[in-house]
Amino acid sequence: MEQNAICYVNGAFVRAAQAKISIFDRAFLFADGVYEVAAVLDGKLVDVDAHLARYERSLAALQMQPALTRAALVAVMREIVARNALDEGLVYIQQTRGAPLERDFPFPADAVQPTLVLFAHKKPVIGAVAAAKGVAVKSVADRRWARRDIKSVSLLAQVLAKQEARAAGCAEAFLVEDGFVTEGAASTAFIVTRTGQIVTRALSHAILPGCTRIAVMRLAEEAGLSVVERAFSIEEAQGAAECFITSATTFVTPVVMLDGRPIGSGAPGPVAQRLRALYIETARQTAQ
Amino acid sequence: MEQNAICYVNGAFVRAAQAKISIFDRAFLFADGVYEVAAVLDGKLVDVDAHLARYERSLAALQMQPALTRAALVAVMREIVARNALDEGLVYIQQTRGAPLERDFPFPADAVQPTLVLFAHKKPVIGAVAAAKGVAVKSVADRRWARRDIKSVSLLAQVLAKQEARAAGCAEAFLVEDGFVTEGAASTAFIVTRTGQIVTRALSHAILPGCTRIAVMRLAEEAGLSVVERAFSIEEAQGAAECFITSATTFVTPVVMLDGRPIGSGAPGPVAQRLRALYIETARQTAQ
Repeated sequence: MEQNAICYVNGAFVRAAQAKISIFDRAFLFADGVYEVAAVLDGKLVDVDAHLARYERSLAALQMQPALTRAALVAVMREIVARNALDEGLVYIQQTRGAPLERDFPFPADAVQPTLVLFAHKKPVIGAVAAAKGVAVKSVADRRWARRDIKSVSLLAQVLAKQEARAAGCAEAFLVEDGFVTEGAASTAFIVTRTGQIVTRALSHAILPGCTRIAVMRLAEEAGLSVVERAFSIEEAQGAAECFITSATTFVTPVVMLDGRPIGSGAPGPVAQRLRALYIETARQTAQ
Repeated sequence: MEQNAICYVNGAFVRAAQAKISIFDRAFLFADGVYEVAAVLDGKLVDVDAHLARYERSLAALQMQPALTRAALVAVMREIVARNALDEGLVYIQQTRGAPLERDFPFPADAVQPTLVLFAHKKPVIGAVAAAKGVAVKSVADRRWARRDIKSVSLLAQVLAKQEARAAGCAEAFLVEDGFVTEGAASTAFIVTRTGQIVTRALSHAILPGCTRIAVMRLAEEAGLSVVERAFSIEEAQGAAECFITSATTFVTPVVMLDGRPIGSGAPGPVAQRLRALYIETARQTAQ
């Protein structure tokens, strides 16, 4: 991002280098905030209703009121896209419980203005190299807290997992708990079995309800593919016909290597490629 | 805290109302930072060597280099105490992995300046009402991540636990995992059995290695009391002779009620009161 990219901080549009919040912000001190990321294609917001519905659920789970109405927030998202002349990339939103000038764990007793921050990031989404070549993934112990269904900024476990993956030359980590993959550190994990079933873990507090996950499951079913929600192990994934991940900004990305073992042919598989094409087609058509 | 309290932000002493960091700070976006709190008595730092040793361990566990040497950091802590004319209260320190102008989970590839923030908070420590009257505690499920031994700002689970406790009229939450108390949301949990043994959980990744915990254990042993490190349940705590918590700024505080059941006589017990007096005496003598 450039120093003079335009960000939004509590009602003001400011340069990235000047975009600041208080050291007393509860996200800085306590990870007490939620966030959302939406892809931008052709200057339009992808799957924004699903993302903002989840954002509102995350806020409600932490007993926070939205700083803006959904319509007002979408208007700010569009303004951020316009001011940065963003054609392709993402918009990031974060709301926190505000910055009372006192550090105390429970929610502030007095009304405090929430903090609301947005920024945009240009990056190739459609033509991402990872999508064409596929990515390598490393399994890492899932060390996260119990409420992964809330999209909070309490992300240190994910940071460490992603770093562990990168240090091993991998683009993503599959988080493993009690012998099964929960999800990727910043994605949903899928496999395609040798009988052609698409498998991904069922929703619970153990994983984030992925917006792209649900969109891709729907597209798969519409295309006549069988989708099953159940847990799978690293070993099952290594022996699967295909493996892929989904997220707001990587869409559908094939996984071609897992813990050093090639998956299927070791190249992006036909199901992942087809679902990626379907997702991009729909995203383009429905982006707002 | 007052708007014009003096804080430290990356080398500068600034008023609280002007103490700001970038929205790209990794503690704000990812909870990627560590912190430490030291009590101040008579304008001097309590148990500062233990706190800074733990701070360095936390940084090392997250592969961060200290922004300042220990001696330089102590000098800034003293400067914060002096500039705020702080006689009694606490100094808070937080270092983060810095604020690269890009949001990406793994550690930044390029060298980034860490963020270092300090502030002071005046509050009665010796004469705290909670110490004289004892506090009520509520049991809450321990929903934290797997590395509670690292004193990171990934504290959202603690925030929710403390809020749940406060909503029930309690000052602290005892976090319960697999049927046993791990620790308090912001304290170490102790009981005194009916045979006079002092019991607290053994160190592991499941709890923070409390600086006050270790100091109090040493004082208890020096006073001829028996100290045992093992897990205990809420039921055992409710039936104990006494229960108390320790932390950097609450020292030793009696717990007189747990999930609505009085502990012992329902008033601060003699062991907790004695250990508090011993701790304060030592803290006063050794504060730097």
